[in-house]
Amino acid sequence: MGVSQPDTPAVSPIRRPRADQARQVADVLRHQIYEGAYEQGLPSETELAAEFFVSRNTVREALAVLKHEGLIERGTKVGTHVAVRKFDHGLDALVGLKETFKDYGEVHNEVRAALRPAAPPAVARKLGLEPGAEVVFVERLRYLGDLPLSLDLTYLVPDIGEQVIGYDLETNDIFTLIERVSGQRLGGATLALEAVSADPHSAATLQVPNGSALLMAERLTSLDDGRPVDLEYIRMRGDRITMRGNLFRRDT
Amino acid sequence: MGVSQPDTPAVSPIRRPRADQARQVADVLRHQIYEGAYEQGLPSETELAAEFFVSRNTVREALAVLKHEGLIERGTKVGTHVAVRKFDHGLDALVGLKETFKDYGEVHNEVRAALRPAAPPAVARKLGLEPGAEVVFVERLRYLGDLPLSLDLTYLVPDIGEQVIGYDLETNDIFTLIERVSGQRLGGATLALEAVSADPHSAATLQVPNGSALLMAERLTSLDDGRPVDLEYIRMRGDRITMRGNLFRRDT
Repeated sequence: MGVSQPDTPAVSPIRRPRADQARQVADVLRHQIYEGAYEQGLPSETELAAEFFVSRNTVREALAVLKHEGLIERGTKVGTHVAVRKFDHGLDALVGLKETFKDYGEVHNEVRAALRPAAPPAVARKLGLEPGAEVVFVERLRYLGDLPLSLDLTYLVPDIGEQVIGYDLETNDIFTLIERVSGQRLGGATLALEAVSADPHSAATLQVPNGSALLMAERLTSLDDGRPVDLEYIRMRGDRITMRGNLFRRDT
Repeated sequence: MGVSQPDTPAVSPIRRPRADQARQVADVLRHQIYEGAYEQGLPSETELAAEFFVSRNTVREALAVLKHEGLIERGTKVGTHVAVRKFDHGLDALVGLKETFKDYGEVHNEVRAALRPAAPPAVARKLGLEPGAEVVFVERLRYLGDLPLSLDLTYLVPDIGEQVIGYDLETNDIFTLIERVSGQRLGGATLALEAVSADPHSAATLQVPNGSALLMAERLTSLDDGRPVDLEYIRMRGDRITMRGNLFRRDT
């Protein structure tokens, strides 16, 4: 494997820049917040300094990072509180948003478009259609309660899409409808996930500041028989959604 | 499943706002670019308008979105070109960066710190240690060639960490070293993935503009025997890394 012992001992700076230490504290705190450790408010700066073995100035800088992200709020009298709740979305399973969030609350969809455009070549190819073939396109802004969580652009193959848009798209997951109209289970999907800055129009639609970090997914879903039927481009609010999953060591 | 036919027909606006159409075009184009469709440059606005069945103004707005993300460059004489190359990182397998990118080029690591701090309680708990126990902490800025791709903060359990930092951390994946010193294969990991805006110091370190979207991962990796040994906080440049994987329909 080309692994050799080094000639020099490992780097061990006596004193790290405060910004590096602050990032280190912020990263651990962030996940404690997600995990619900501080629902009654965060400990004081002094307590956090003791917990993380750092100075109060470092704690203050770490909290400033999390405040900048919008994750916490700080007030001189009220202390430090968690400002937003994040929701977990599974990376492993192929599950619609309504199914995923059924323990958090009611998901409903604002249907912004339901159209039958001609498929651009790249879309047609992924769905196994001829370039220019008619597809069904649905655009939905998806809410959990009053909170917009994601903006989903969906291309469906025509035979399935035509039937899917006959149903109530405001309250049903498209995955559920595909299984219903096809009489088949979904098989699997390929997923590409990235972080992008929200363009002004997407930001306004999702009710986040211009340039906010979004989790963006391209997902191509196939039926159990392997036929691709559903191509989606999904923008999720970075401040609201964490994707969680498990990884396994493959044989190398 | 509570799926009922709607009373009203599906929404079908005659004319969608141009920004919505532009987003739709930008999303498909973005993935064509990732897939290497336009290495010689993008087609003209007129050609793209024909391909996507939209107006040239809509194409222009879609290209403006991708330019804003830094994905393409536009010049009046030279046309439109892909500005950055993105690299695929696997979501399914537990593989180090050097292994992952072996076909793209050489990964090397700038070791910014290698320390033996006391573990904050949250870190200790995840690694199955007593609060305040000594851990090994390594911070690395990871490059592919000259390009910084990710900033990784790693906490290792002491028995394994002490041995790992005896090796050359600049050229070896920590995963490889853990397997070497433990004599075990890695088993699995839990992963939490999100999009965050880069704080000024992280942005400067990763050489991206302040506030750029980063893919941020918390990953807790265990040995084959199930013992957690490696807790990482990883910031990846959103403009450079796409996470790819497969999803499967679980039985519901």
